Amino acid sequence: VETLIEIKYAVNTILLLLTGSTIMFMAAGFAMLEAGLVRAKSTVEILTKNISLYALACLMYLLMGYAIMYPAEIANSLWPGMDFLLPGEHTPQAILDAKGRIQYSTVAHFFFQMVFSATSMSIVSGAVAERMKLWAFLLFAVIQTGIIYPLEGFWSWGGGFLHQLGYYDFSGSGVVHLTGAMAALSGVLFLGPRLDKYRDGEIFPIPGANLPLSALGTLILWFGWFGFNGGTVFMASNGWIEKANAMAMVIVNTNLAGAAGAIAALAIARFLFGTADLTMALSGIITALVAITASPLTPSPAMAVFIGAIAGVLVVFVIVILERMQIDDPVGAIAVHGVGGLWGLLAVCLSNPAASLKAQLIGIVTLSLWGLLASGIVWYLLRRYMGIRISENDEEEGIDIGECGLEAYPDFTPRS
Amino acid sequence: VETLIEIKYAVNTILLLLTGSTIMFMAAGFAMLEAGLVRAKSTVEILTKNISLYALACLMYLLMGYAIMYPAEIANSLWPGMDFLLPGEHTPQAILDAKGRIQYSTVAHFFFQMVFSATSMSIVSGAVAERMKLWAFLLFAVIQTGIIYPLEGFWSWGGGFLHQLGYYDFSGSGVVHLTGAMAALSGVLFLGPRLDKYRDGEIFPIPGANLPLSALGTLILWFGWFGFNGGTVFMASNGWIEKANAMAMVIVNTNLAGAAGAIAALAIARFLFGTADLTMALSGIITALVAITASPLTPSPAMAVFIGAIAGVLVVFVIVILERMQIDDPVGAIAVHGVGGLWGLLAVCLSNPAASLKAQLIGIVTLSLWGLLASGIVWYLLRRYMGIRISENDEEEGIDIGECGLEAYPDFTPRS
Amino acid sequence: VETLIEIKYAVNTILLLLTGSTIMFMAAGFAMLEAGLVRAKSTVEILTKNISLYALACLMYLLMGYAIMYPAEIANSLWPGMDFLLPGEHTPQAILDAKGRIQYSTVAHFFFQMVFSATSMSIVSGAVAERMKLWAFLLFAVIQTGIIYPLEGFWSWGGGFLHQLGYYDFSGSGVVHLTGAMAALSGVLFLGPRLDKYRDGEIFPIPGANLPLSALGTLILWFGWFGFNGGTVFMASNGWIEKANAMAMVIVNTNLAGAAGAIAALAIARFLFGTADLTMALSGIITALVAITASPLTPSPAMAVFIGAIAGVLVVFVIVILERMQIDDPVGAIAVHGVGGLWGLLAVCLSNPAASLKAQLIGIVTLSLWGLLASGIVWYLLRRYMGIRISENDEEEGIDIGECGLEAYPDFTPRS
Repeated sequence: VETLIEIKYAVNTILLLLTGSTIMFMAAGFAMLEAGLVRAKSTVEILTKNISLYALACLMYLLMGYAIMYPAEIANSLWPGMDFLLPGEHTPQAILDAKGRIQYSTVAHFFFQMVFSATSMSIVSGAVAERMKLWAFLLFAVIQTGIIYPLEGFWSWGGGFLHQLGYYDFSGSGVVHLTGAMAALSGVLFLGPRLDKYRDGEIFPIPGANLPLSALGTLILWFGWFGFNGGTVFMASNGWIEKANAMAMVIVNTNLAGAAGAIAALAIARFLFGTADLTMALSGIITALVAITASPLTPSPAMAVFIGAIAGVLVVFVIVILERMQIDDPVGAIAVHGVGGLWGLLAVCLSNPAASLKAQLIGIVTLSLWGLLASGIVWYLLRRYMGIRISENDEEEGIDIGECGLEAYPDFTPRS
Repeated sequence: VETLIEIKYAVNTILLLLTGSTIMFMAAGFAMLEAGLVRAKSTVEILTKNISLYALACLMYLLMGYAIMYPAEIANSLWPGMDFLLPGEHTPQAILDAKGRIQYSTVAHFFFQMVFSATSMSIVSGAVAERMKLWAFLLFAVIQTGIIYPLEGFWSWGGGFLHQLGYYDFSGSGVVHLTGAMAALSGVLFLGPRLDKYRDGEIFPIPGANLPLSALGTLILWFGWFGFNGGTVFMASNGWIEKANAMAMVIVNTNLAGAAGAIAALAIARFLFGTADLTMALSGIITALVAITASPLTPSPAMAVFIGAIAGVLVVFVIVILERMQIDDPVGAIAVHGVGGLWGLLAVCLSNPAASLKAQLIGIVTLSLWGLLASGIVWYLLRRYMGIRISENDEEEGIDIGECGLEAYPDFTPRS
Repeated sequence: VETLIEIKYAVNTILLLLTGSTIMFMAAGFAMLEAGLVRAKSTVEILTKNISLYALACLMYLLMGYAIMYPAEIANSLWPGMDFLLPGEHTPQAILDAKGRIQYSTVAHFFFQMVFSATSMSIVSGAVAERMKLWAFLLFAVIQTGIIYPLEGFWSWGGGFLHQLGYYDFSGSGVVHLTGAMAALSGVLFLGPRLDKYRDGEIFPIPGANLPLSALGTLILWFGWFGFNGGTVFMASNGWIEKANAMAMVIVNTNLAGAAGAIAALAIARFLFGTADLTMALSGIITALVAITASPLTPSPAMAVFIGAIAGVLVVFVIVILERMQIDDPVGAIAVHGVGGLWGLLAVCLSNPAASLKAQLIGIVTLSLWGLLASGIVWYLLRRYMGIRISENDEEEGIDIGECGLEAYPDFTPRS
């Protein structure tokens, strides 16, 4: 029996590491998605931003994020919870189940949560693309991943008040995506639209420079989402069969929601614009994946299709509405993660008897306000004391030259 | 003992999900491979097609494909076999082994087969690139993944007559690839070549616009193929050691066949054309991977090298021959999947004592005719009642503008 | 108890196969990284090279590499050790632990080592880009992966003299990366810089043509590195908990080192050049990953951050120094893998009480000299009897046309 507990501990731990690895790979997904949707002259900067924010998020999560988010899981020390990650003699720690048996390695749990924290930050980078000062953004990333995200993570998952109220959010429709969208919205409001986007009351579309990259990025995200939702299963305490069945249902529902989101968005776009708009299909996929993330285990597959399809329809309208409201988001991140998060958290009530609409609404309001206001204060301070917008000259020439000193595609003639 | 059965059930189920996830990622492989091999002006459409067909295949497999393909595995109900996927009270189902012990989750089996069905459809999209109406293609995809593929899947794997005759096809050289190639061939025959391909009896090469994407796509496919062939092992009923050893041999043989296909095609291309033709090396890899798929477990690694090398040589000749026959396939899908499938199904007899040449030949003829005729009827009806070819103007301007309203690379000056 | 040994055998074997698959995927990482850093006119050739060298490495490892590197693990036969890979009757073999119990499949071990051998070769291809004859390079790859790498692999890992001296190199900072860098350095010295790189004593920067591909490639490598370092854990003989904990610590440290390398290189580049140089951040990541590879299990996460940060700082200086020394390495491979390897092997002593500085120094000197001289002899012979450099005309026109007969981006107007 001792050995069987050890085997389960090992399998849980290993699967948190394997699925966490595919979540890390989502950094490539976000980087490609966004690099394809900005102009050629803003590509190096968005790549630099995506890579740096992933790195910063990991370092900040080590430095303080994990200790803030999961204080109960970890031993107390001067630097709470960090002792197992610092030099010196200490026994490896394990997360225990309700009966006090070891369940999985705390270090693996740290890894899984670390890559989650990076995902939450990735959402912001695209919305402020092409016009924000790189170093201001990176400073924001430090505070977002070091404090803002871990705190609401603690509320929702680490034992805090939302958790106690019964707020249900399986893999982070709200914790990761909705708050990411709100931080992005807040940033865009302080930043303003790109120079060429609105003139004389007219809206000028600014098409992405490299759509194959965006399609690739979306498919990488889809693939990574199996780890994002599927890995969470291995933190639950239950039997072998129950756990395997749960992972199967989670992955089937994640996949079907994404598929339904793609087709729904494509069909609506065809109906509204007359063409099969690839970027809308990509947005539909991600919105649907965000939406199913709140509760991928409880819906039937038919319900998962429904949740994904509604997400795919909604996001097309919200993208159009935000654009008309002069909220300029080059990659549609606010719409995608905001709509997906909101709809997903509400849709939990359709399939999950353990969820209450009241708790979900409290969660939505809390996380939205927190996302807007906490990051808003940071954006405000950054704008006031450092400046967050590059010069008009730099923006016209392209942010790549000014911030990174490199061109993304130097061998090709730009279209004039 | 009860627990050991549970552990095996969990491991089988989890591994079907993990390997199935990498098969899903092959959608990115096909998308990139094809996006790199068409012209810049046809890139958005092929991306849209690849993403939509993946989504449609998943939805159709849920709606009817699985029930058609595996009627014996699943409980009877009004909508046969769908009850475990629909809302309501029902116990999770498991696939049993010969002794009646649970082997793996039916939901995981559904996932694994769902991503397979998408792969089979991906083969067609490249062959008809740059000139087929998008919505006609998507309608074809609905029928192909909803009926045509699941029916022959039932014959071969679900207990149907090919299975009973002893037709051997481990992971689908025939079921997935050969029939995909035949559906593609049938489509191209109804569609005709691209406008610029043949003029005055001369053949004009139309080079792909973005070869790094094609190389990336091929390597993604190679990576995904480890899941494609390796995952199938976990549906077999046998002991821990036997299963692990089988997976090891399958993955080693898959890798070595791909390697041999690359080098063989590169060497032949060098011999025939005088240059190291990257696209031939890529075609050689995929053809070899298709060929080894029919029986990746039984050959020795040396034999796997032989099977891959022959595939790599054959495909170069067949690509040239098809091009001369005015069968215009922008990505070489017909040659790659047709040759790989045919040769692979025959090569089974070289290493697998359980296979019979007669059964393989019956399988080849059945699947080829079915692929050609069943899809041919659909293509015919689509052409007659809807039209399958875009206008000459649209084709000259590029299918992207007409069908998707977007350019893939708007910031770059096209070469005139 | 018998069954528990079987389960451990199966889990070890399966995880070697899964992590080995992600190492194979690193071939895509190297291909994209390098394809993005060369000029547009040299892109097809570098893709062809990367794909061919992966294939050749696998075939050569089957043919002779494995038998040279691990003679003790495998049965003797006429062609030592190959019998389990060749046709005929033979029982599957297993690697045994110290107590004589089966530990994992020899075939899986072969797979894992085969993909490692390909990685070692990938390092060379970028350094000699844009000017080396493709077929000379491929001949070099045959000898490097067939003899040079397996021999030093035997010394370090297969039971040879470095192993006996106590040289410690967990996943190959030295065996794979340092020697790869030395082979690359040796090749560049025989080959000389690109035509346009140095003129009249001045250094002309030659920017990469497609930086999104390089960012993608780096993130693929980072993802693959979890398998590269994490998979090695499953070849150790120890208990379930110990093994799972080891994998967790290895993956956390690998990730944190990469993150620290990114930020350190970005900060130093900002300090030195005034801009956030993406290519330096990418180099910092890979250097840090190389450095942590020597001993990813023993450092605390805080120490892993330190090791990665130092690597990120060092590589920026070494890239600049090598460029001034007229050692023209288009992708920075010599600096990245050389610095990472050297620093990583020394840093082992900071955290690993089992390591001795003396043994590490002997390892460094041995592997560096072997890498330089053994490959130097091959480069010399190739230059003498075959020629290794393409003609000046071909280089000006671009190596793609001359060697591969294809353009990578034929639809786009090159910038003049």
